[in-house]
Amino acid sequence: MVQNDFYDAFKASLSDPTFDRIYVLSHLNPDGDAVGSACALTYLLRLSGKKALYFTETPDHKYAYLSDAWNSDRYGGLFAPEHFITTDTTGFSRLSKLPDGFSHENEFELLLSFVIDHHKCNSFSCTHKLVLSEKAAAGEIIFDLYKNCGIGFDEYSAAAIYTAIATDTGCFRYANTRASSFLCAAELCEFAPGGSFYEINKIHFETKSFKKIKIESYAVENAIFRINGALVFSVFDSSERARLSITDIELEGVVSMLRQIEGVRAAFVLKQQPSGEFKVSVRTDYTAAFGGINAAELCACFSGGGHDAAAGCSLSGAPDEIIDLLESAAVKTMNSKNASV
Amino acid sequence: MVQNDFYDAFKASLSDPTFDRIYVLSHLNPDGDAVGSACALTYLLRLSGKKALYFTETPDHKYAYLSDAWNSDRYGGLFAPEHFITTDTTGFSRLSKLPDGFSHENEFELLLSFVIDHHKCNSFSCTHKLVLSEKAAAGEIIFDLYKNCGIGFDEYSAAAIYTAIATDTGCFRYANTRASSFLCAAELCEFAPGGSFYEINKIHFETKSFKKIKIESYAVENAIFRINGALVFSVFDSSERARLSITDIELEGVVSMLRQIEGVRAAFVLKQQPSGEFKVSVRTDYTAAFGGINAAELCACFSGGGHDAAAGCSLSGAPDEIIDLLESAAVKTMNSKNASV
Repeated sequence: MVQNDFYDAFKASLSDPTFDRIYVLSHLNPDGDAVGSACALTYLLRLSGKKALYFTETPDHKYAYLSDAWNSDRYGGLFAPEHFITTDTTGFSRLSKLPDGFSHENEFELLLSFVIDHHKCNSFSCTHKLVLSEKAAAGEIIFDLYKNCGIGFDEYSAAAIYTAIATDTGCFRYANTRASSFLCAAELCEFAPGGSFYEINKIHFETKSFKKIKIESYAVENAIFRINGALVFSVFDSSERARLSITDIELEGVVSMLRQIEGVRAAFVLKQQPSGEFKVSVRTDYTAAFGGINAAELCACFSGGGHDAAAGCSLSGAPDEIIDLLESAAVKTMNSKNASV
Repeated sequence: MVQNDFYDAFKASLSDPTFDRIYVLSHLNPDGDAVGSACALTYLLRLSGKKALYFTETPDHKYAYLSDAWNSDRYGGLFAPEHFITTDTTGFSRLSKLPDGFSHENEFELLLSFVIDHHKCNSFSCTHKLVLSEKAAAGEIIFDLYKNCGIGFDEYSAAAIYTAIATDTGCFRYANTRASSFLCAAELCEFAPGGSFYEINKIHFETKSFKKIKIESYAVENAIFRINGALVFSVFDSSERARLSITDIELEGVVSMLRQIEGVRAAFVLKQQPSGEFKVSVRTDYTAAFGGINAAELCACFSGGGHDAAAGCSLSGAPDEIIDLLESAAVKTMNSKNASV
């Protein structure tokens, strides 16, 4: 859908009295962009006099400063939804939570009024659907929505949209960071306490549990290098996981930390599952502009998938054998890259 | 000096033929803002037809992409300077390197034409001196200088100024990040290859040597906690430093990593010197807007000093005794804070 048509339709709905009792939904295991964009959207609807709720599994406690959007107590509990809006969610099966009576996609889509996303592969069917894959975060689209609706920012909306953009860009570090991300942040800054988002940055980028730091330190102490340090592997087998009682969530991010080691072109974390199989997380040096190892291509060798620089797959066998397989696939991926240059 | 007067004087000097043969200087152990602001300034002078050189000790290899500014080969070696400009440097004793014949402050200041800085405590004596302490980086002042001189950005100047701003704000994470930092970054983005500074971010924020990561992991494994985890200490004594051959530079940043542990309000790294004494680096949760432990106040108890959230001091004795002393000072600093609320 064309951007301006979408904004016009959305703006029109704000003055439509039948557009009310709205559930805003985002994706499973909600991250900063899911939470931030959904909260900012819910808030915009409320500022426009609508009954609106961010309907989701409870996000991680670090998002508590935005919790008003998903707290149904303000309405004396849940209400029957008449409209759905999704943000940052590619499709039905990825929704964080479903209201009673909407377990089929068709039922759900009957009430689906607007879809906002920045993932190209969005599969929702909806008349008013805006997917802008050039945006670093769905939060940037919500930022534009505020502007288009003529609704000013305040401390809450600024915190929510900033959270969305900062987390999806790794605090402006990743390759998806563009002028538009910085421009949003510059404008939102004016509504941050003391003109600075330091408190939010501290929560998301400057705080780690001691357990998480200990896990990272275990990964470094037991790192296995291949091809002169171009590849690094760390194995968390069932016995080690049991010894330190490590959940899958606590292992997130370990692979990104290993990827930062100077000279590393691909990092792998092998996480043994209760089934005995290993879930493998892969992070590579791939960037669209500069090449590198494509993680999705590498994982495709083992029926896995993901993004160019971050992907995953599952493999069975002894860790040593799995490492050999992954090494071969990495070499093949490097060579196929070189061959095509 | 008033900002506009400074810019006017600088602009006038660009069309003055006697303003030539210029050395741009920055501070000792040059960091990203020192290197970035000096390189961008040198480049601006060259674009204006001046013979200009960034005169400095060779910066760390990670700044190699800006090396043209300090490479004197383009002039067949060093030339006799007729003008000095300093950037990001508080005073004479902090200069990275001095040209022959300028070892006295008075001699140096005779040729000092312009002083640019964002540290309030700047002590240079110079007619044309611009110190803007509200700027996150000296690079932001150079950004404004380009605008005022009507000189457009290109890939080199954008990379240099971005480096200055990104490194001094911890990639836009620190409390000094303001709307102006984001606005500079937004405009400079347009001159980055592919519209993204990812390659520069990777060098400064996504790359660590394996040795550095091993040192951090040692610090975590041997961390000592006090007051329910509010304080964390890590000791690198001479024998440990010798065993891992750890330099002072390699210990930089370890204290910031410890500071990130959830619940920590102050982190301390004790680095034994060849003299036997311990240099102590302190990082605290102090922010102007939100309070916390003031690191400078804490270190002042031991004749040390620094900034509100980052300071240092030196202490002699056994590590356990030093930790006790630091703990008492931290408690006293917390109490004095509470008392004044």
